[in-house]
Amino acid sequence: MAQRLIVVGGDAAGMAAASQARRRRDRADLEIVVFERGHFTSYSACGIPYWISGLVPEPDALVVREPETFRTSYHMDVRMRHEVTAIDVERREVVARDLTGGGEVRERFDELVYAAGAVPVRPEWARDDIGGVFGMQTLDDGAALRDWLEGDPRPRHAVVVGGGYIGVEMAEALIVRGLTVTLIEQADQPMSTVDPDMAELVVDAMTGIGIQTRAGLRVTGLEERDGRVHTVVTAEGPVPADVVVLGLGVRPNTALAEAAGLPLGPTGAIRVDRRMRVPGLPGFWAAGDCVETLHRVSGLPVHIPLGTHANKQGRVAGINIGGGYATFTGVIGTAVTKVCELEVGRTGLRERDATAAGFEFVSVIAESTSRAGYYPGARPMTVKLIAERPSGRLLGAQIVGWSEAAKRIDTLAVALWNGMTVDEMSALDLGYAPPYAPVWDPVLIAARKAVDAVAASG
Amino acid sequence: MAQRLIVVGGDAAGMAAASQARRRRDRADLEIVVFERGHFTSYSACGIPYWISGLVPEPDALVVREPETFRTSYHMDVRMRHEVTAIDVERREVVARDLTGGGEVRERFDELVYAAGAVPVRPEWARDDIGGVFGMQTLDDGAALRDWLEGDPRPRHAVVVGGGYIGVEMAEALIVRGLTVTLIEQADQPMSTVDPDMAELVVDAMTGIGIQTRAGLRVTGLEERDGRVHTVVTAEGPVPADVVVLGLGVRPNTALAEAAGLPLGPTGAIRVDRRMRVPGLPGFWAAGDCVETLHRVSGLPVHIPLGTHANKQGRVAGINIGGGYATFTGVIGTAVTKVCELEVGRTGLRERDATAAGFEFVSVIAESTSRAGYYPGARPMTVKLIAERPSGRLLGAQIVGWSEAAKRIDTLAVALWNGMTVDEMSALDLGYAPPYAPVWDPVLIAARKAVDAVAASG
Repeated sequence: MAQRLIVVGGDAAGMAAASQARRRRDRADLEIVVFERGHFTSYSACGIPYWISGLVPEPDALVVREPETFRTSYHMDVRMRHEVTAIDVERREVVARDLTGGGEVRERFDELVYAAGAVPVRPEWARDDIGGVFGMQTLDDGAALRDWLEGDPRPRHAVVVGGGYIGVEMAEALIVRGLTVTLIEQADQPMSTVDPDMAELVVDAMTGIGIQTRAGLRVTGLEERDGRVHTVVTAEGPVPADVVVLGLGVRPNTALAEAAGLPLGPTGAIRVDRRMRVPGLPGFWAAGDCVETLHRVSGLPVHIPLGTHANKQGRVAGINIGGGYATFTGVIGTAVTKVCELEVGRTGLRERDATAAGFEFVSVIAESTSRAGYYPGARPMTVKLIAERPSGRLLGAQIVGWSEAAKRIDTLAVALWNGMTVDEMSALDLGYAPPYAPVWDPVLIAARKAVDAVAASG
Repeated sequence: MAQRLIVVGGDAAGMAAASQARRRRDRADLEIVVFERGHFTSYSACGIPYWISGLVPEPDALVVREPETFRTSYHMDVRMRHEVTAIDVERREVVARDLTGGGEVRERFDELVYAAGAVPVRPEWARDDIGGVFGMQTLDDGAALRDWLEGDPRPRHAVVVGGGYIGVEMAEALIVRGLTVTLIEQADQPMSTVDPDMAELVVDAMTGIGIQTRAGLRVTGLEERDGRVHTVVTAEGPVPADVVVLGLGVRPNTALAEAAGLPLGPTGAIRVDRRMRVPGLPGFWAAGDCVETLHRVSGLPVHIPLGTHANKQGRVAGINIGGGYATFTGVIGTAVTKVCELEVGRTGLRERDATAAGFEFVSVIAESTSRAGYYPGARPMTVKLIAERPSGRLLGAQIVGWSEAAKRIDTLAVALWNGMTVDEMSALDLGYAPPYAPVWDPVLIAARKAVDAVAASG
């Protein structure tokens, strides 16, 4: 008799796991049942801001694969709009509810992949009964916001609460749509994904495209009129708003896992080993935005919900379920984004992370250009390196620039992944031609400067 | 009494060496005399094609530092238009001729940096007495070509002989100027800096912008009319040409070094150790396009004349002359270029190099896109990886693509530099956001494909 794999959550991690398991085990050997409470499988949540802005015209473009594809080509029993409500570890069964009103089912499993993702942080003041307040995590969220933006009366004043990647990208999307946008950030600065000195460059760019940023400001409530949001109330007074987008980050969706006794780690996300197994529960796997993973630089567990990790982790789980051998060996916190034309990349530890992890370090900032200075289109590029002292080992890097900047972080990410010192990095053989780099690449200039700073630090 | 450093050749390597030596030793401790036979110090030869095309309007833009800057700010005795004609190793003197007619001088030295660069390969048929035939290595070469192109009668038909970087870049520059351009390559294909399958993509792009490429064709002579070139004679008949540009590569400029007894390596370039010392001759240093260096992947000596290496090597020599410690630990053959909007990057070994070095290997080609498929401006990107079998160690990589492709080679270059296997590479934490990459970066897709190919190869 075939074994049975149940996948809880049919997005990136879940579907990657299911697909890899299927690739190695046919349906006579392994039945695969996927429960997904939403309307979509395998879509690009990261693309939602570009759909809101209109840059991506149709949400269909964000869907990587339709449920039907998984059913027919991968022979999976994909049940959309089904929410798993309980996992019975002892009896190896899940209980799932048909959200379209079809009642409840119990299904047994031999292997279970928990890939329930993350849920947006929603503060108490963001009451569900006030229209015009949107979390931004699923395509359904995006569709609801689009409808609201195109509704009558047409919203004109947006407030984005939270200045992380989603907040900043949504602020830009709303500017593109012609709304006034105020971004409210509780911390001292938006874009705290990079150090304050680098974030400053991003905030300048945001201001340049008309986003009003208000940092160090706490939202305390909303005021409504006829069930529609009308004002965001803050410690410094009211901010008019007929649409509010929440960009306060996400937390791992672990309620179901906790109830079933899956172990959580210090970040609040599910603990897994490097094969994506849940420790102590044979046949249980977890992957994606609901798990924590090792930060290879700090050595600490981190919760970094990101599609690229979710895909890799799901793939690792699926290969192992399929009888292969694969491991997920951790992350280094690489991320890229853009604000208008300004590109931002980061990898490794920020200064505050390095301090928290107990490192002694030096930081340098090197100004350079994306191309040879004389080549048309050369634009400023700022590279920041954080290096341990006295070893010179790279701990983290950030790049902000106006063209060809963001993906240059990959060069630094691979150096970091390999534990290179800034001295070793300064010798790297990187591509040089006038349209692509000065003869000393910005990365090399920064590495040389860091070598000097490490030496000067004693 | 101050010691005395003589630098033979005042371009990238020579001036980097002189500057670093000065940074560490003041003029009371070290006199520095630089002999440069040309009109310029420290200029970007790589920028010449873009000056020819008009993209860079003035040659001054290509000059990094004027001789006067070195004299006043660095206290160097920089003698332009002075050609060193002999090096007397026993007496530690050089003989230099003033090319402007000022006679000959002898100067003693304690330390000598030989940085005489490279000279363009000029076949016998490219006689000096025929007007309209240009090598392309110095700003003077560029100026002569610009004058010819703007002269009367105005040239209309260009032939570029040689399909390496300079040949291809010059062909594009001449197309931009409105000439008809035929590029003649003796080998089976132009752009042999990448493997034939990848070069094909580049040749297609060249054809697309109107460059006629003729491969496997040997030039046998030129025909002139009134002292001006009129026809390029080939094995397959005449090709009309009123301007001919030679892009046949360069060879190390070693005549003077050989006469003085400096040792040459198997590539015909000067041998140096990792501190850029000439073995067996204390106080003799060499750097830049005249030296050979270690290829870190093949373990073989190579001659790769490139500004970025010249700068690094000169810097290393200068630090050591200054009493510091620095090493140049070799290259991996990274290079980037563009043909119209097509970007080309390479690093490490091509298939033929891997075979020559005795490796067993697999190759994979992965097609992907520069951005998430749904994001506007996503363009095709082709990544080729060459991996040793059965170890899976990366040996080389090539990228061809229409946007944000060339500098992605740096990601692979750093992986190669660190000896990563394709399996390790497939786990890399690279930047992901829809404007910059699909959720599986092209580099990761290629790495995964290579993992499979290595496994399948037994």
